[in-house]
Amino acid sequence: MRGAVLHGPKDLRFEEREMPSVIKPTDAILRISATCVCGSDLWPYRGIQKIAQPTPMGHEYCGIVEKVGSAVRTVKPGQFVIGSFFASDNTCPHCHAGYQTSCQQREFVTTAQAPILRVPLADGTLVAAPEVPPDDLVPSLLTLSDVMGTGWFAADAAGVKPGSTVAVVGDGAVGLLGVLSAKQIGAGRIIAMSRHESRQKLAKEFGATDIVTERGDDGVARIKELTKGIGADSVLECVGTQESMMQAIRSTRPGGGIGYVGVPHGVELDGEQLFFSHVHLHGGPAPVRRYLPELINLVWERKINPGKVFDLVLPLDQVAEGYRAMDERRAIKTLLRP
Amino acid sequence: MRGAVLHGPKDLRFEEREMPSVIKPTDAILRISATCVCGSDLWPYRGIQKIAQPTPMGHEYCGIVEKVGSAVRTVKPGQFVIGSFFASDNTCPHCHAGYQTSCQQREFVTTAQAPILRVPLADGTLVAAPEVPPDDLVPSLLTLSDVMGTGWFAADAAGVKPGSTVAVVGDGAVGLLGVLSAKQIGAGRIIAMSRHESRQKLAKEFGATDIVTERGDDGVARIKELTKGIGADSVLECVGTQESMMQAIRSTRPGGGIGYVGVPHGVELDGEQLFFSHVHLHGGPAPVRRYLPELINLVWERKINPGKVFDLVLPLDQVAEGYRAMDERRAIKTLLRP
Repeated sequence: MRGAVLHGPKDLRFEEREMPSVIKPTDAILRISATCVCGSDLWPYRGIQKIAQPTPMGHEYCGIVEKVGSAVRTVKPGQFVIGSFFASDNTCPHCHAGYQTSCQQREFVTTAQAPILRVPLADGTLVAAPEVPPDDLVPSLLTLSDVMGTGWFAADAAGVKPGSTVAVVGDGAVGLLGVLSAKQIGAGRIIAMSRHESRQKLAKEFGATDIVTERGDDGVARIKELTKGIGADSVLECVGTQESMMQAIRSTRPGGGIGYVGVPHGVELDGEQLFFSHVHLHGGPAPVRRYLPELINLVWERKINPGKVFDLVLPLDQVAEGYRAMDERRAIKTLLRP
Repeated sequence: MRGAVLHGPKDLRFEEREMPSVIKPTDAILRISATCVCGSDLWPYRGIQKIAQPTPMGHEYCGIVEKVGSAVRTVKPGQFVIGSFFASDNTCPHCHAGYQTSCQQREFVTTAQAPILRVPLADGTLVAAPEVPPDDLVPSLLTLSDVMGTGWFAADAAGVKPGSTVAVVGDGAVGLLGVLSAKQIGAGRIIAMSRHESRQKLAKEFGATDIVTERGDDGVARIKELTKGIGADSVLECVGTQESMMQAIRSTRPGGGIGYVGVPHGVELDGEQLFFSHVHLHGGPAPVRRYLPELINLVWERKINPGKVFDLVLPLDQVAEGYRAMDERRAIKTLLRP
């Protein structure tokens, strides 16, 4: 089997990898219908996050169950399933609390950019669609594995409510789906911070009512201006840099909420500044497993179409070009078909 | 009039100060029934927070209205009132959201350790008791001006719910009243972190079910041990140091909440660590004005007795000894009677 392997900065190869098989009785083996490149894959791709050795890549996936281990009860061969980027048992206290990405048994899925995938803890991790979906629903169902669930968690963690004013920092796929999530929850006003025309366009399509192109101090000033000096009720931080985090904190009204889902890289928060900002801060690796049933339903009933974030579709063997296009911001997000 | 003036580290004097008078039509003048020394007064007293010049002190107060400005409508001379340590108009959007300590017109009250006090924005800041209280209720009513409201906010911000498991970091007056607040809200288990026998005793009286004497890594390990490895549902951070903040974050279960009310001094939070902790973080200067009506009622009906935190009562002219006793941890909190 051939799949994606990162060898070093900007050196992504499509090459021979070991064929996955059932190792533990709780495993399932999937034939991947679609996988994709995540914004977070770009951290190691760009060399910002070091890798110690050639590393298989990919953590977003959906597909058909081919085989299950002897202990698997809730999914079976032939079903179309979607799973979280973190495998979880869905039975431990953290899972019960809705934080499956902090599962006591969690395992990061790291080999999904391939035709065949082993998923640990299959019963806890995978959720089956009502049936094998029509092909045009596959991109949207794929987003539920990470990017859409992450945008949804950002909105949930930021406390978005019907009628509220929301700002979204970051116009990557997560930010754009944060806009869609806020719209779906019923936000009255959604301010997308973006400088890129194609992304602004998609943000508007997903429900953004205002576009702010400024960043840093100017971006904060513009949000304040748009909210009568008050700040946004909820801010979705979908980047993970010091600048984006501070922009989020300073754009939020006292008592408002920030949902932060961009994996922080070098972020340090000043305790005193945070204290006097009076914001609620919540985030982390999105527990997308919690949202899968609800979001599968919304996609299945064609109420949301998060698959629109894929503006580049490639055969899996061109995965290297998929990374390049995202790295150079030529594409928002690349979908890969084995 | 004589009142407290800080001249430099450990140099607190009781000396002549200007007699307050109505300056703005929204002011009220109070004859102080009782005032006290706050844990946060110790930061400048110890020289950790610098002062530029001799500085009048005190921000916790209750007393009888003597005079009001021409625009004051809701309080009148002869009433016994309690106010927040931040004056607020209670009409701006931040006040309406319940964050009166972020009021667009907020003014810090800084001269309360004196017999007479000017309170700005009297209508928004002061809440009258049903009548002039019996003397034994005055200490508890005084705590509502800051320390009890702050403990209550810590519990509220940490999301304490009936039945939940709560840990309290800090055994100063705020931490102890955080214990009382968690108990009043109905927490099922309350773990107080304290090494001092007299404070442990009061914590238990206020509702603590467990005492943890360890700090840092050992303290976190002990909380985990007491909660079957899960962590506390809610943690109240009532100190404001790097160590106490990290202890709080690491003691909280994923998805749990931290209410932090200790003014942070030199605290830096690592974004990545916070991200993977999955905690909710909320805090800041407590909007005690929000809670005043409810808490006055609880004290009035003798359902809570937060005034027990005062283990030293002095005449106001001995205010310097009041500071010394708290600085040397001989007293939890000093009440001063003019």
